[in-house]
Amino acid sequence: MKTLATLEPLIARLREVQHLNSAASLLSWDQETYMPPGGGPARADQLATLQGLAHDKLVSPEVEALLMQWIDPATGQARDQPGDAWDEPSRSLLREVWRDFSRARKLPSDFVKRLGRECSLAQQVWAEARGQNSFARFLPSLRTIVALKLEETRYLGYRDSPYDALLDTYEPGATVAALTPLFATLKARLVPLLNRVLKSRAAVDDALLFQTYDPTRQMEFGKLVLTAMGYDFDRGRLDLSAHPFTTSFHPTDVRVTTRVYKKEFSACLFSCVHEGGHGLYDQGLDQERYGTPLGEALSLGIHESQSRLWENCVGRSRPFWRCFYPLLQQLFPEQLKAVEPDRFYAAINRVTPSLIRVEADELTYNLHIMLRFEIERDLIEGQIAVEDLQAAWNDKMRDYLGLAPPTDAEGVLQDVHWSLGAIGYFPTYALGNLYSVQLYEQARRDIQGLEEEIAAGRLTVLKKWLNQKVHRWGRTFTADHLIRRVTGTPLSPEPFLAYLEQKYGELYRLSS
Amino acid sequence: MKTLATLEPLIARLREVQHLNSAASLLSWDQETYMPPGGGPARADQLATLQGLAHDKLVSPEVEALLMQWIDPATGQARDQPGDAWDEPSRSLLREVWRDFSRARKLPSDFVKRLGRECSLAQQVWAEARGQNSFARFLPSLRTIVALKLEETRYLGYRDSPYDALLDTYEPGATVAALTPLFATLKARLVPLLNRVLKSRAAVDDALLFQTYDPTRQMEFGKLVLTAMGYDFDRGRLDLSAHPFTTSFHPTDVRVTTRVYKKEFSACLFSCVHEGGHGLYDQGLDQERYGTPLGEALSLGIHESQSRLWENCVGRSRPFWRCFYPLLQQLFPEQLKAVEPDRFYAAINRVTPSLIRVEADELTYNLHIMLRFEIERDLIEGQIAVEDLQAAWNDKMRDYLGLAPPTDAEGVLQDVHWSLGAIGYFPTYALGNLYSVQLYEQARRDIQGLEEEIAAGRLTVLKKWLNQKVHRWGRTFTADHLIRRVTGTPLSPEPFLAYLEQKYGELYRLSS
Repeated sequence: MKTLATLEPLIARLREVQHLNSAASLLSWDQETYMPPGGGPARADQLATLQGLAHDKLVSPEVEALLMQWIDPATGQARDQPGDAWDEPSRSLLREVWRDFSRARKLPSDFVKRLGRECSLAQQVWAEARGQNSFARFLPSLRTIVALKLEETRYLGYRDSPYDALLDTYEPGATVAALTPLFATLKARLVPLLNRVLKSRAAVDDALLFQTYDPTRQMEFGKLVLTAMGYDFDRGRLDLSAHPFTTSFHPTDVRVTTRVYKKEFSACLFSCVHEGGHGLYDQGLDQERYGTPLGEALSLGIHESQSRLWENCVGRSRPFWRCFYPLLQQLFPEQLKAVEPDRFYAAINRVTPSLIRVEADELTYNLHIMLRFEIERDLIEGQIAVEDLQAAWNDKMRDYLGLAPPTDAEGVLQDVHWSLGAIGYFPTYALGNLYSVQLYEQARRDIQGLEEEIAAGRLTVLKKWLNQKVHRWGRTFTADHLIRRVTGTPLSPEPFLAYLEQKYGELYRLSS
Repeated sequence: MKTLATLEPLIARLREVQHLNSAASLLSWDQETYMPPGGGPARADQLATLQGLAHDKLVSPEVEALLMQWIDPATGQARDQPGDAWDEPSRSLLREVWRDFSRARKLPSDFVKRLGRECSLAQQVWAEARGQNSFARFLPSLRTIVALKLEETRYLGYRDSPYDALLDTYEPGATVAALTPLFATLKARLVPLLNRVLKSRAAVDDALLFQTYDPTRQMEFGKLVLTAMGYDFDRGRLDLSAHPFTTSFHPTDVRVTTRVYKKEFSACLFSCVHEGGHGLYDQGLDQERYGTPLGEALSLGIHESQSRLWENCVGRSRPFWRCFYPLLQQLFPEQLKAVEPDRFYAAINRVTPSLIRVEADELTYNLHIMLRFEIERDLIEGQIAVEDLQAAWNDKMRDYLGLAPPTDAEGVLQDVHWSLGAIGYFPTYALGNLYSVQLYEQARRDIQGLEEEIAAGRLTVLKKWLNQKVHRWGRTFTADHLIRRVTGTPLSPEPFLAYLEQKYGELYRLSS
């Protein structure tokens, strides 16, 4: 039996690639948190160099020679010698390294550097454009990015849609052909549910969330919840950034960010819990396998399932607040002393069509994603031009949510993703929502009295289950395999839809 | 005439090396400021990878081939073709690249990685050992570092003393043979001056500096002074760290750190001014020459001259406080309202033998350096063993300053340098002190009414002079050439000694 020990020469090279990628991640984290404003252009050059080198090291002749020894390039699978098969971890590792290697090899090194540099610059232009509410200001950068991503689809290749090549970057195997019916099912159930909610006469008001909440105390509470979740501050930290995110340089250094608004309670806390879910995944990866696919997150959809599970299934649930609401009341007596737990629960779960994806409630969130999916698909398939994005955005907002963005900052400029070149990323958020409920329902079946544990503040019971079932495996399994392995069934929209119908049926007193 | 344009293929490669070095500098900055405690070992690996790659890229066959076209390796100078000479910037660039290249080429790549990794680890052990007051805790790491530095001297080669090979890293051309008489001259004048000061009956008391000073206000004042100096916060930032330092990733991103003690005024402010002096140098380097020696600081001695000039010649002078003392009194009315400017000036200039180098007054500071010079020299020349360092330190402290360190943290463990592998670095501090006064005296001659400008808060008059005379040239000249070019004479201890004799003669009312 051949084991990971055989692969050591390959693994040493992969680790070097990972060190470069981790350094690049720190440069990006710094860019979003502490970099002085003038440092942008030089940072773009530094990032491009690191990304270019990491790419070159991965596709080097040395790595190719090692892989060719061990892998059948026709199947992308490990080659067994008669009587000397590979063990399972080695097979998984080789399969996934081959995926990364063969994808990366299609991209010229010069292209990788250009893309890295342009994205780092575009990200800064986007931030300015958003501040100035001007899509026109961002347009030239976006045109560059989209042209580069189209170039990328030609390098990567695809069967049906060029958008498939980009989707596959973030969610291996995802395609327009598979997502279209899935999203149609969701839409067919979500829109009627939304309409019933909007017609409901149940009193669900969230004005109480828009009182003045001291930012320092908000951060304190965020840290308290992160700690309760089992997020390890010896191996992480919490900072502020314009757009909350999680980044990892190693399981021993996984950082989350949040944002704080003085006059709004939800942003800080739910960003903490959301990013904390991501952070637990990255802290829970196998340190021994650092630098190899076995020590990496499986896909963005699975990553998002972890953040959404904590944010929604836990953080917006009654059991969670049974424990944490009294603590919150202590921190904000003036604001919350007179507010009954039920009223608070209703406020944080209020459904209302809104302009901003990251502030959307659980019910309308996926509608924001479908809008972006359609726009990106049409853009990459050449059905609409970059110039038309603003109009397309506003049209679809009316269609899906009945709203007209008053400014670009609240419309087409709201997300950082396009400026980062992350086209094809948004659908993973919708997948994450589906996975999150499917996993959480399984956790409730597996862990006796889970909701009582949560209500007692023992959130780490759930963290440990996720560590065992999801985190520690890295990319050992495909997403499809993992989800079947843990829940017994393939990905399905049913648990998610049933969860929403139950939750909002109760909250909005809908007749069933 | 051949110009820098000819060198573009070389410069492009040097820029890539610099991007890697800048990324490594950011990783180090982060390690000292924001990295969570658990992140240390992974950070060490990442740093080692970046440093190893930067080294490999510098000594690559491509760089060698380019240099061999243009440089005579026997002299290390640019080779002129008849009728087609190099211009001055190109000659300087080639001379300095050759120096870096030929030094780097002597060091095996594997050695560079090992050293980078061990230093990053040792730095963390040192911090713990200092916290625990335990030299024994640091001893194994220090033994590793010293062994590596001895290995380095063998790779680099030397004529007289192996310590020369290390000195040359930080101050090109510095040798034991040259420093020994220079330090002897200093000692011969400083020790008698110190004795006269200690016997003086002038009332110089600094108790007022040890009242409670609100840390936030201290930081505010530090920022105010940095801004007045012309330090550009759009291209820099101020953070806290255990050991204040300056780091630069590009002239557009130059960061300084300081430390704050609630019950002590000097540390925060003078660290700000000191690091601000370093920061002005790095912000003042020529952006167009980034990545080449022409865009790099000349030597550590010259770098230190900038920090000490601002810290001492400016920051501890009467003209400076004529402007800033009223502002300081406004910030700390309770503490300073009743304190006359003269009493404050005396307090911040009080001479007293002390245990900690970075807190030493201007008169005793160089004695701390001589102690370290002798210890390092003896260590590297094999006259004393790593085990004996603690005893050697304590003996010399008694000799030079009449003090016995009560703890290792206040003695042999006080400086970060050895843990970083920076043996041979300390003498540059003494050189910096000498250069600083020699330059400042020249600035007083060149800038009419400099002290009146300073007294009016117009510190940028001096900054601009330094920009023009020192900063913008990078490594165009050698230190010796630069100092002669600016001041008309070679390095001399006389201006420094005369300055101290004048300053402390007046303050301590010494009869001349």
